Amino acid sequence: MKVNPELDLVLERIVDVPVELVWKAWTRPEHLTKWFTPAPWKTTECTIDLRPGGLFHTMMQSPEGQSFPCDGCYLEIIPNKKLVWTDSLGPDFRPVAIPGGTSEERPFYFTGVILFEAHGAGTKYTAIGMHSNVDGRKKHEEMGFHHGWGIALDQLVAHVKKSMISTA
Amino acid sequence: MKVNPELDLVLERIVDVPVELVWKAWTRPEHLTKWFTPAPWKTTECTIDLRPGGLFHTMMQSPEGQSFPCDGCYLEIIPNKKLVWTDSLGPDFRPVAIPGGTSEERPFYFTGVILFEAHGAGTKYTAIGMHSNVDGRKKHEEMGFHHGWGIALDQLVAHVKKSMISTA
Repeated sequence: MKVNPELDLVLERIVDVPVELVWKAWTRPEHLTKWFTPAPWKTTECTIDLRPGGLFHTMMQSPEGQSFPCDGCYLEIIPNKKLVWTDSLGPDFRPVAIPGGTSEERPFYFTGVILFEAHGAGTKYTAIGMHSNVDGRKKHEEMGFHHGWGIALDQLVAHVKKSMISTA
Repeated sequence: MKVNPELDLVLERIVDVPVELVWKAWTRPEHLTKWFTPAPWKTTECTIDLRPGGLFHTMMQSPEGQSFPCDGCYLEIIPNKKLVWTDSLGPDFRPVAIPGGTSEERPFYFTGVILFEAHGAGTKYTAIGMHSNVDGRKKHEEMGFHHGWGIALDQLVAHVKKSMISTA
């Protein structure tokens, strides 16, 4: 996986929960809804059709109660190793991008890549956001990519420790 | 594969060459360049990195000598059965779409699906163009999708009969 620093955002951390559970936390709705959005935001819906071309749907809810759907398409799935999806395609790989579409509601498209790697009893976790151009990367960075994805990862680890270790 | 008639364009034909050779004609540059663009247009370059996330590059040349690059990303590859790529992602699934980008140079994004099926000694061939919205489908239709992809298929069959049957 070649990272382009001009276009990509990267969060890399070692966490002390096993890679199989980090994978489960990302790929099962009943787990994902517990950690995916930095509190006090909530993830109120999640649909995971875990196959290339399958739907990845979440609904995020702001503290004020406003709902924001987030739909993407899974691209590459290597259990316990690599998960790739994009919001520029919908289910069955249908493009959602419309040239000349307004850019206010949707400031950029991105492809998300999560790399999972066993690291002792824990996991080396790498989250990558890939963008079309520098402007898209900057906007995602200003939205708080590192902070937000970092908090979500903290929540993931807390969730795994609390409720998943025993059900591995 | 569910087709949406509002958003998709479909070309379905039975051709009298074996499915393995139709697959080869689509997946090897030395064959693809021989039939891909309706004459007198030419395909002057072709790069095929046949894996999900791999580059599908062609360069088309008009009769006047102008060159038009066409880059996409392979999404799903099932040998002799199904080939899927899109021009809304680049290599390694990087989005190329930019919200609010000008729409004149690029009137739509699409995902192409080719379905291959043995039919006696020949092949049932289905080409599908998937679009984001009705406008994108109409623009692709007006550009001559059915006519152009039909001529290309005629050229594919002629190429296979002339030079590939013996090298199967």
